[in-house]
Amino acid sequence: MVQIPDFSDVIEAAYRIESCVHHTPLFSSTTLDRMVGAEIYFKPENLQKTGSFKARGACNAVLSLTEAEANCGVATHSSGNHAQAIAYAAQLRGVQATIVMPEDAPSVKVAAVKEYGATIVWAGPHPLERERQLELVVGETGATFVHPSNDLQVIAGQGTAALELLEDIVLVSTRPPDIILVPVGGGGLLSGTALAVAGRDRGTRTIGVEPEMVDDAARSFRDGRIYPPTGAVTVADGLRTFLGDVNFPLIRRHVSDILTVTEQGIIVAMRLIWERLKLVVEPSSAVPVAALFEHPEVFKGQRVGIVLSGGNVDLTDLTWW
Amino acid sequence: MVQIPDFSDVIEAAYRIESCVHHTPLFSSTTLDRMVGAEIYFKPENLQKTGSFKARGACNAVLSLTEAEANCGVATHSSGNHAQAIAYAAQLRGVQATIVMPEDAPSVKVAAVKEYGATIVWAGPHPLERERQLELVVGETGATFVHPSNDLQVIAGQGTAALELLEDIVLVSTRPPDIILVPVGGGGLLSGTALAVAGRDRGTRTIGVEPEMVDDAARSFRDGRIYPPTGAVTVADGLRTFLGDVNFPLIRRHVSDILTVTEQGIIVAMRLIWERLKLVVEPSSAVPVAALFEHPEVFKGQRVGIVLSGGNVDLTDLTWW
Repeated sequence: MVQIPDFSDVIEAAYRIESCVHHTPLFSSTTLDRMVGAEIYFKPENLQKTGSFKARGACNAVLSLTEAEANCGVATHSSGNHAQAIAYAAQLRGVQATIVMPEDAPSVKVAAVKEYGATIVWAGPHPLERERQLELVVGETGATFVHPSNDLQVIAGQGTAALELLEDIVLVSTRPPDIILVPVGGGGLLSGTALAVAGRDRGTRTIGVEPEMVDDAARSFRDGRIYPPTGAVTVADGLRTFLGDVNFPLIRRHVSDILTVTEQGIIVAMRLIWERLKLVVEPSSAVPVAALFEHPEVFKGQRVGIVLSGGNVDLTDLTWW
Repeated sequence: MVQIPDFSDVIEAAYRIESCVHHTPLFSSTTLDRMVGAEIYFKPENLQKTGSFKARGACNAVLSLTEAEANCGVATHSSGNHAQAIAYAAQLRGVQATIVMPEDAPSVKVAAVKEYGATIVWAGPHPLERERQLELVVGETGATFVHPSNDLQVIAGQGTAALELLEDIVLVSTRPPDIILVPVGGGGLLSGTALAVAGRDRGTRTIGVEPEMVDDAARSFRDGRIYPPTGAVTVADGLRTFLGDVNFPLIRRHVSDILTVTEQGIIVAMRLIWERLKLVVEPSSAVPVAALFEHPEVFKGQRVGIVLSGGNVDLTDLTWW
């Protein structure tokens, strides 16, 4: 029996993780507002601990463990932001973290995970190899597996970003946003956001955005069944994962729509964020911003809150250095 | 007779420009703190209106004009952040701005100045050609020349960043910083900062940092006379200007030291800011950060506030697009 989180889990998460994560500020740009013809508020989770919103879900999951569970540690497989987030959360609580990473993971991400004191177990590049390794780790240590997106406490934790965004937009503009916009990969952020927004019940709609190259979530949403990943390559490489049985019911119930955007649109939006907001963001963060330009009819005249998901990009190739 | 600003001019500036500029937030990074062995607070003026602290001085200068002066407009020569700042300030007050720009100015900066409705007058690349053009504009229109760094109201306006930084560090850590660190180019930011810090009188020292390739300010400070620019090229191209008779007396009186840093140090520091603080900053912003690593004996164990001066970099060359 799958346990689905409800709004009270998001509120509980907000209290639980308060001292472990940043309440990130609101950003806005009069130029971007004018370009889109809308009132847009950005929540820069690239400024979050570990460089992405994933710190929220990971902290909530790790801090929710019983003492007995914590003593056996936590484990996950990820080459990206979830790996750093779990390593960070585990270090905070003082529990052992084991991260199964593909042998070809970027060295900067490997270094970040090691910095937080986590143990790395290598696996081949195929997802099945990583799952097999993870099973071995869990079998040997009794560690709790914290899934990157299909886990009750992770979803509740990710929802806390939208809670803050809703509150802060009301503080600044006296009215709640019409739309909250987030990227969709595995569905943890989207389902948590939708849960928070529905729970606050201020008439705000939650919309997810996905690269059209990996549009499995949009098709799943439309057809009412979870499709596997397309396997295609997108510049927003954090979004190649697929929905799960914990988050999908929430997405079906509380999300208004899932839009798709082109690769070119993502690149252009990313440059706009770097140039206008002066923020280093990863391509996944640009995905909802691209939707503002590729689906203008949805956003014209609206008050829109956008979660910029993270800022962990490899800067090695930039010509500056 | 040169009019030198005093602390009351900085306080007045803070009230005058309050609704025209952002009170930028504090940023910090536990990783950077650990690397340096200090407690470091960053004030990201790249997030300021027009993308740099120059909006402060420009707004203060333009809002300080009498009605009669305002009716004749303002003029300046600049290919950089001061041009955008003056154009922005003039648009806010509804006065005419004329900016003398070199013909080889980056198109992105030209576009920004035009966006704010300023008139551009072209001049050859040599500084003397720009000054000659500016004299013609001022002669014809009666516009007030607002110097980028050697102007009483500009200096007072730039000092407001340090006022906020001092207050915000006390709010966060209950104690004032030991050191405030800013880059030095023409000396407007450094003299305004020193004035604000001295006026607050909390035992904080003001230190300027300059690329060693263009060390005229450090030598001027040491020898008590203003040296001309070295003419050398530095990656921190916003800092190639030199001190003036309004700001130099303030720098001599209130600044503790001017340090220099290498080009390599600036590049490494810039990458650190992009990677760790997730902020798009221009090389000038990295200059004080480079000093943390090249002069560690000065900063070890200290509470340090740093003004990140701006974020207007040309991103065209980045491999992403």
